[in-house]
Amino acid sequence: MIKAVIIGLGNVGTHLSRALQQSNQVEVIQYLNRSPISENELTSRIGLASLDKFTHDFDKIKEADMYFIAVKDDAIEEVIDSIPFQQKIVAHTSGSVALSENAKHQNAVFYPLQTFSKQREVNFSEIPICIEAASKKTLHVLESIANSISNKVFYIDSIQRKQLHLSAVFVCNFVNHLYHIGENLCTSKGIDPQILAPLIQETVAKIVDLSPQDAQTGPALRGDQQTMKAHLETLKDNTKLQELYQLISASIQEHGKKL
Amino acid sequence: MIKAVIIGLGNVGTHLSRALQQSNQVEVIQYLNRSPISENELTSRIGLASLDKFTHDFDKIKEADMYFIAVKDDAIEEVIDSIPFQQKIVAHTSGSVALSENAKHQNAVFYPLQTFSKQREVNFSEIPICIEAASKKTLHVLESIANSISNKVFYIDSIQRKQLHLSAVFVCNFVNHLYHIGENLCTSKGIDPQILAPLIQETVAKIVDLSPQDAQTGPALRGDQQTMKAHLETLKDNTKLQELYQLISASIQEHGKKL
Repeated sequence: MIKAVIIGLGNVGTHLSRALQQSNQVEVIQYLNRSPISENELTSRIGLASLDKFTHDFDKIKEADMYFIAVKDDAIEEVIDSIPFQQKIVAHTSGSVALSENAKHQNAVFYPLQTFSKQREVNFSEIPICIEAASKKTLHVLESIANSISNKVFYIDSIQRKQLHLSAVFVCNFVNHLYHIGENLCTSKGIDPQILAPLIQETVAKIVDLSPQDAQTGPALRGDQQTMKAHLETLKDNTKLQELYQLISASIQEHGKKL
Repeated sequence: MIKAVIIGLGNVGTHLSRALQQSNQVEVIQYLNRSPISENELTSRIGLASLDKFTHDFDKIKEADMYFIAVKDDAIEEVIDSIPFQQKIVAHTSGSVALSENAKHQNAVFYPLQTFSKQREVNFSEIPICIEAASKKTLHVLESIANSISNKVFYIDSIQRKQLHLSAVFVCNFVNHLYHIGENLCTSKGIDPQILAPLIQETVAKIVDLSPQDAQTGPALRGDQQTMKAHLETLKDNTKLQELYQLISASIQEHGKKL
């Protein structure tokens, strides 16, 4: 069993902790979070019955084989450099930060590609885990850990991971924002936004069978100027939404050419 | 049983035909499509074993109690006016066209809110049907038909329906386009776009439990300038995608204020 410490108990650290507790490859010997967390909160977040395995004091960090870094992107390098042991496997969990070049450690990345909220349980076995390491030996260790908690393990280098993170912003954060806009448009005219749910579900279900390009429908694709003009007229009190409508419609019309 | 004719066998007309064939309130006595359709094609699209109930000749249109108009938006009024009988119930199926004011008929709207592709079966019982009519009597007829094929029937007037159609463009056509962009970003760096599937699924699943506003995550919401700058740098060869990225990110940041 690889002894590991998890640093950072935000959304990613919390869900990763729960998953690693089920792994037969890893024993998590300590959880570290810079701000204190109450015993009750620790129990509800990651099922710890006591504070024994938890510290918020970086000076009390234990020696282990491996450290998972689930802190904010701009704190990652500092945390890696603060680990007071040599040549440990140190894996950050960020989509947008390159593999560290810190010479004190065996640098690695263990990036679960998912949107995490503390309120929602996720099935980790279905979450793609993107791994990268500075050496083959470290990569093998990451591989066995990733395979112990997920059925979907991918080798993704730093350049690919950055691109993947950008893709994720489009298909998750930006999509969710369009849901928000759709909901607001409904409620502003007294329509229950739940009416959109089957359409939202089918739009996702379609791209399992069809590529997004083949699945596309709607006025922009048809070049239906009359409907697009009417939509823009409906949005006349919101120039930002008008601009967004025009930009995405133009992008749909360009779609076969280049993206 | 209400005798009905369906005019137009595109995506909407095809799926509506299949649904109405299962209704205990309607007997479809004729299908009309301006361009001819072969017997084989009719069988595969709507299960007709022969051409007996089909015509592409408007002069052969039969007298019925009701006519469903599933033609292109800009042809709807012309088709309604061409029906050579008086005071029939005439319901168009468009999200963006107002209730007709044609004095010859009992005007109505029967709008199924869904994205239809000929290649995909849909479960009509889960599709919201938005009904509107010029008279209460007609509305009751539409109501009994809608309830016979769907569990989700809504009274939506022309102003609301126009807004609903606009919402649908955001949560369906525009969302699908973001899937397309995400896929292209992956393939351009040799990443299998299937890696995005669990994230796409979870993004949708989340808004069943959380509102889109509460479900939002990502660099724009966090105000993570460093990551956003890096993403824009990644998109430096595609100014249109850069513009889209900036506009949606700015809209996310404004989201609590006004949309």
